Amino acid sequence: MLASKTVQELLDAFSAPTPTPGGGSAAALAGAVSASLLAMVAAMPKTKNGTPEERATLDALHPTLMALRAELTDLIDRDAASYDAVVAAYRLPKATDAEKAARKTAVAAAMRLATDVPLETLRAAVALKSHGKVVAENGNLNASSDVGVALNLALSAGLGALLNVETNLSGISDEAYVAQVRQEIDKLRQHYRQH
Amino acid sequence: MLASKTVQELLDAFSAPTPTPGGGSAAALAGAVSASLLAMVAAMPKTKNGTPEERATLDALHPTLMALRAELTDLIDRDAASYDAVVAAYRLPKATDAEKAARKTAVAAAMRLATDVPLETLRAAVALKSHGKVVAENGNLNASSDVGVALNLALSAGLGALLNVETNLSGISDEAYVAQVRQEIDKLRQHYRQH
Repeated sequence: MLASKTVQELLDAFSAPTPTPGGGSAAALAGAVSASLLAMVAAMPKTKNGTPEERATLDALHPTLMALRAELTDLIDRDAASYDAVVAAYRLPKATDAEKAARKTAVAAAMRLATDVPLETLRAAVALKSHGKVVAENGNLNASSDVGVALNLALSAGLGALLNVETNLSGISDEAYVAQVRQEIDKLRQHYRQH
Repeated sequence: MLASKTVQELLDAFSAPTPTPGGGSAAALAGAVSASLLAMVAAMPKTKNGTPEERATLDALHPTLMALRAELTDLIDRDAASYDAVVAAYRLPKATDAEKAARKTAVAAAMRLATDVPLETLRAAVALKSHGKVVAENGNLNASSDVGVALNLALSAGLGALLNVETNLSGISDEAYVAQVRQEIDKLRQHYRQH
């Protein structure tokens, strides 16, 4: 588990010239930090104007933020594992026609997973951007720079995940799947522009 | 040391409704991850076109990227420590005139440090944006999404640090210092627009 490594060890793993962990895991980590900062502000005793409505809104949002943090923390590992599976599939034997066919199926399945995983990071990052707006509108004004940092991190987590979705999508030949993912990421991109 | 905590423990610390660690430390962490990903690509055996010039450029840049990673990792802790010092200064006694004067001096010194520290993060993040361009121009094309994630993280580290510099600067009365910092951050902001 990458999340049970120390921060220094994780930075060592990112710095090593090995395929994983790479940008997909880094995007998920940025999202997990963003969710944590938003949870911090939602849990602060003070709200923007001290009204019971603000308190209720932040209390209701807190479990969602903690769930997104947990999901994004898992995605740090799942992104690395999905890429390792792509590499393993490409290394399968391809001497006979049967081996070639089995390898092709394995590569296609692995590429699809390696697209679905950053897509999940992207969805979580887009959700964080919306939740971050609610925290900004209801949370302690003394923590507004923390909310600002969280929103910036959610943006870079989403854009980073999007880069990974697009890169892996270009290696997939299942046209129906590609069209469906393209439609979803176009919608999520629009969401980014609006918020 | 926050960097010797596990990733889960650091996320717990960010999530806790205590003043530190907050956005300033998160911005520094994003910068450290960005530097690590750029170091990864610079250390890969393959370069963009496999020329000796690309290899020499990436080899020359690698130690700089590792030094920025180390500096930004230190800044995760230094940002938290500088904010803790502000809180401690505000808690000093203010019963007598002598106490009031001592407290005022301590708060001013702590606020200045709490501005200098994210300013250092901002400078490092701006440097990473420039170095990232060099890695993009010379590095392994298979890692281009890693470089893209690194550049996004450097941007959010810089913008996050800038938010913290501006927030803390607004609490400083030394006009010469404020003017000097404003001049520097205006220049760094321009740099962001150009790159």
